[in-house]
Amino acid sequence: MREPTVVAEPGLPEAVTIWEVGPRDGLQNESAIVPVEAKAEFVERLVAAGLPVVEATSFVHPKWVPQLADAAELVQRLGPDGRRHPVLVPNERGLQRAIDLGCEHVAIFGSATDTFAQRNLNSSVEEQFAMFEPTVTRARSEGMDVRAYVSMCFGDPWEGDVPVEQVVAVGTRLLDLGASQLSLGDTIGVGTAGHVTALLDAFNAAGVPDDVLAVHFHDTYGQALANAGAALRHGVRTFDSSAGGLGGCPYAESATGNLATEDLVWMLHGLGVGTGVDLEALVATSVWMAEVLGRPSPSRVVAALAG
Amino acid sequence: MREPTVVAEPGLPEAVTIWEVGPRDGLQNESAIVPVEAKAEFVERLVAAGLPVVEATSFVHPKWVPQLADAAELVQRLGPDGRRHPVLVPNERGLQRAIDLGCEHVAIFGSATDTFAQRNLNSSVEEQFAMFEPTVTRARSEGMDVRAYVSMCFGDPWEGDVPVEQVVAVGTRLLDLGASQLSLGDTIGVGTAGHVTALLDAFNAAGVPDDVLAVHFHDTYGQALANAGAALRHGVRTFDSSAGGLGGCPYAESATGNLATEDLVWMLHGLGVGTGVDLEALVATSVWMAEVLGRPSPSRVVAALAG
Repeated sequence: MREPTVVAEPGLPEAVTIWEVGPRDGLQNESAIVPVEAKAEFVERLVAAGLPVVEATSFVHPKWVPQLADAAELVQRLGPDGRRHPVLVPNERGLQRAIDLGCEHVAIFGSATDTFAQRNLNSSVEEQFAMFEPTVTRARSEGMDVRAYVSMCFGDPWEGDVPVEQVVAVGTRLLDLGASQLSLGDTIGVGTAGHVTALLDAFNAAGVPDDVLAVHFHDTYGQALANAGAALRHGVRTFDSSAGGLGGCPYAESATGNLATEDLVWMLHGLGVGTGVDLEALVATSVWMAEVLGRPSPSRVVAALAG
Repeated sequence: MREPTVVAEPGLPEAVTIWEVGPRDGLQNESAIVPVEAKAEFVERLVAAGLPVVEATSFVHPKWVPQLADAAELVQRLGPDGRRHPVLVPNERGLQRAIDLGCEHVAIFGSATDTFAQRNLNSSVEEQFAMFEPTVTRARSEGMDVRAYVSMCFGDPWEGDVPVEQVVAVGTRLLDLGASQLSLGDTIGVGTAGHVTALLDAFNAAGVPDDVLAVHFHDTYGQALANAGAALRHGVRTFDSSAGGLGGCPYAESATGNLATEDLVWMLHGLGVGTGVDLEALVATSVWMAEVLGRPSPSRVVAALAG
């Protein structure tokens, strides 16, 4: 299978971490329920393809995301290794389910804007901290690692522009609660590269270094990979992406697919930046999942290499 | 309609030139013949949307590209302004047709690799210069401006890696013949950002400055916009793209769509780089052309804004 020509770019790291979100963020939008056996196979194949972190599922209430009603069953099916995979927990009740299963890593899902906080969390930006505080405190007391997503960092479908200061204020509060990493999400995919650099600069100025930050781009306006490049050059070393470009956000209009892991891997390997990913195995996994879902993968690399 | 949040990036220019190739490179692959009236409307709407250069058609033999058999009729339909639009000429015979119509700008289509030169030009890389020499000389003597495309600059479907030295050798020969601008094409879309920088560095080292260079990216592996960003930061000021992401290459397997003009405009405007393009008018044009062609535009921005 074709591999990218490697032309290393000065100043880039030898390797970065891809935080694979396909099984959670990718599948949560699917209206047809994917069997738990297929989800377990998806996670296992992604691990076998070399993805170092695979976010497996979310302990959200099944009423909100029926697709992930099998979260506990999935973690159990994954066996002892299943506990290593991060899982999303919306609140203390979700956290308790994760604790009962022995999960070691959890993630919470905050919002940089009031409108999205209202729609997704039924709270204001300010109120979300009170909601997350006991969850993060409990998780930390159980020895769990906590990642905090910050959504709508580059724009909001209802509020339009989102000032970087507002995002930094939310992010630092979540770190103060005890999160060890922030994933800065462009939930509706509107951001461009200079905006990425400006937001990272603002976090740095507030005392938050790039190694505490991850970026999570959606390709709604075609900007995801260019923005990942800007974050990479700035110093970010953790990149969220979704195998085959699956996913979106059920609560935000016009939020389409996540950055495809294959397209990200193609760029990184071309730049001489290691990921540990076996691209051929990953493409085969996405081709298989596309068959499970009954439609072609939106990843350009998958389309090019699977043809 | 939503516009990108502008966050200017230091060191970038106030404005760049988009060289719109939709009517030529975009449509040449279409198997169903598009009526000449629709092509003329396409060009006129692109001009009205603010695109400063619209490559209109190609005077290639209709046997090879039946879609463009109406080249002369299209130029005539466009009236006096039609002569300003660049047209592709494969050889002296094509050039004569362009001269007869009063065209002021022509483009030739060279290859960086032997295999593609054989398939596309029925010549070797070396033989192509002898073929182009009388065409360029005649065009220049008629006062025409000549652009030279160089295809397969970042990889070749048959030869694999293409060394930057080989591309520079071909490009400088085409400039020596009398071309005023090179358009460096990633015909199969495999290149990554560090490769773009390395190729531009190699041209500079050979005495060819960025202002003589344009870049022409295809999105086959999802890299087109990230690569355009690398070229922009390096100093390139002319970017080829295709409205709605139409197009590909009929002679190269796995060559899919051009970089979508809308996705490029979104990035540039977000970075504070002017293009003169009215994004709303451009998106409306691509939506209309998608209806003419009977299938949705592959541009992410068109999909997001037309929904």
